[in-house]
Amino acid sequence: MTRAFSLRLTEAVLTKRCHLIVGLDPRPALLPRDIAAKWRDELGNTLEAAAKATLEFNKGIIDALADIIPAVKPQLACYEQLGVPGMETLAATIEYANAQGLLVIADGKRNDIGSTAESYADAYLGETVLGKRSLRAFAADALTVNPYLGRDSLAPMIERCVSFGHGIFVLVKTSNPGSKELQDLDCGGRKVYEIVGEMCHELGLPHLDERSYSPIGAVVGATYPDEAARLRSLMPHNYFLVPGFGAQGGKPSDVVPCFNPDGLGAVVNSAREVIFAYQKHGGDYPDAARKVAIVSRDAINQALAEVKNLAW
Amino acid sequence: MTRAFSLRLTEAVLTKRCHLIVGLDPRPALLPRDIAAKWRDELGNTLEAAAKATLEFNKGIIDALADIIPAVKPQLACYEQLGVPGMETLAATIEYANAQGLLVIADGKRNDIGSTAESYADAYLGETVLGKRSLRAFAADALTVNPYLGRDSLAPMIERCVSFGHGIFVLVKTSNPGSKELQDLDCGGRKVYEIVGEMCHELGLPHLDERSYSPIGAVVGATYPDEAARLRSLMPHNYFLVPGFGAQGGKPSDVVPCFNPDGLGAVVNSAREVIFAYQKHGGDYPDAARKVAIVSRDAINQALAEVKNLAW
Repeated sequence: MTRAFSLRLTEAVLTKRCHLIVGLDPRPALLPRDIAAKWRDELGNTLEAAAKATLEFNKGIIDALADIIPAVKPQLACYEQLGVPGMETLAATIEYANAQGLLVIADGKRNDIGSTAESYADAYLGETVLGKRSLRAFAADALTVNPYLGRDSLAPMIERCVSFGHGIFVLVKTSNPGSKELQDLDCGGRKVYEIVGEMCHELGLPHLDERSYSPIGAVVGATYPDEAARLRSLMPHNYFLVPGFGAQGGKPSDVVPCFNPDGLGAVVNSAREVIFAYQKHGGDYPDAARKVAIVSRDAINQALAEVKNLAW
Repeated sequence: MTRAFSLRLTEAVLTKRCHLIVGLDPRPALLPRDIAAKWRDELGNTLEAAAKATLEFNKGIIDALADIIPAVKPQLACYEQLGVPGMETLAATIEYANAQGLLVIADGKRNDIGSTAESYADAYLGETVLGKRSLRAFAADALTVNPYLGRDSLAPMIERCVSFGHGIFVLVKTSNPGSKELQDLDCGGRKVYEIVGEMCHELGLPHLDERSYSPIGAVVGATYPDEAARLRSLMPHNYFLVPGFGAQGGKPSDVVPCFNPDGLGAVVNSAREVIFAYQKHGGDYPDAARKVAIVSRDAINQALAEVKNLAW
């Protein structure tokens, strides 16, 4: 029950021979027309209808991918954008993905201090205490978090990770051009992202799993392979969550520096390219998503086999 | 309809002669027993019951304070912790506060990149587009945001602020001890928080309102008055949202450096001390909250009158 998230993730990667995870980042305008129309006919052109259509779409994607990928990463902003019905779809999506054997990384980039940090930790990683009862608000396995507030802001998150077998991924070096602005600032010979990386390394050391990975992962963009290589050497025990692959320009060879020499230690996210593959390639959306996911999985495995190792 | 948030905030401060805003950070364990019991009897010991009790509590607080404070600041983590019913309470709280003439600052510390940043901007500051219709997901007037991802991550937020007359408050120097870790790093003579402050200053300049305030505010903790004074001089056109007053240790004199010489440009947040005042001082919770809010308001005004100016 409290098996480490990092261990569960590694086992899923090994079982499925897949480092690719898929971002569930639905956009109302990109949903298949028949699904959107069905719910609009029933509920009008409302947030409720868009949220119901999104849930149906997500279930189709999950069904198509559950046996080949280790995890999904719902992007919380896409659900918040649909208001309360959107949050209902988020909760149902998490539940459905879990039931299909997928790990769920809630991509919320949350963070705060003190009792508020506790609330975020309870909301996504732990449980909300109501008198004698404890309930899960959003039953994710892991959460992305922002480090700007410092390590005291991460403490409640880490505590819940350890108690409940969950994980966090701390933003370290992100995939966007603007990541240079703060993350690349030079602080007496060390960049801010290196300092954050070292902090994640340190914070994770007391909590390593049987395979030497910690519950504290790092978000490291595929668009900066040199920085990724530097961070990989600074933080060998932290899982990397790698965005920027595919639509953002990262190639299979770019993600290789994010892996450890044993061919483990990173998962690579692809969202739009997979879930909306039907728009580019035609066909039913689940089939199209599955085909592109397999191609991406194989491309990553091949790039890895050429330069480092495959772990299987 | 698109009057600037900063202008609306200044006018509310001047009309009510109050720089205090109140954090709506409800905790299930601290709600008045009769309210909690009433909903528990109806809905069981559930997230639904806690969320309904929270909404009733919030309405009582809003009714008690609407004529004396300019704005409320719901802490999103407290609502997310109650799952989907909590988000329903958040939406209803925002709506109720707006209807009572209060500005609403959604304290979510959100941020992301690219199309996800657009989604957060739509969710809290703009509108969600569904074909020919545009709808508000959470109808806040302003949102707190995190700067770690750089200025491209803020661009969609700023665009929505300008289009819709809304505001953001960027985390610059936070009130917690751990804020030193990243925010105080020395980058060749300038601290990270100074660099972030200067960025906010710059980003705001093209969008000043009639009173020379920009839609881009800054979160600057009351617990670091020297840093606040430095930031005030670096960013005269940015509104400061000042946490750390009251329960976190900030005194009335500590918030004075956050204000401009004209006695404007900052709002000071107090949460627990006001909303849960009944626990310390007894009495009905709305009366207790109102009393403590008035005392806090007057203490801030007095400290300001002694050192700087009152704007009225």
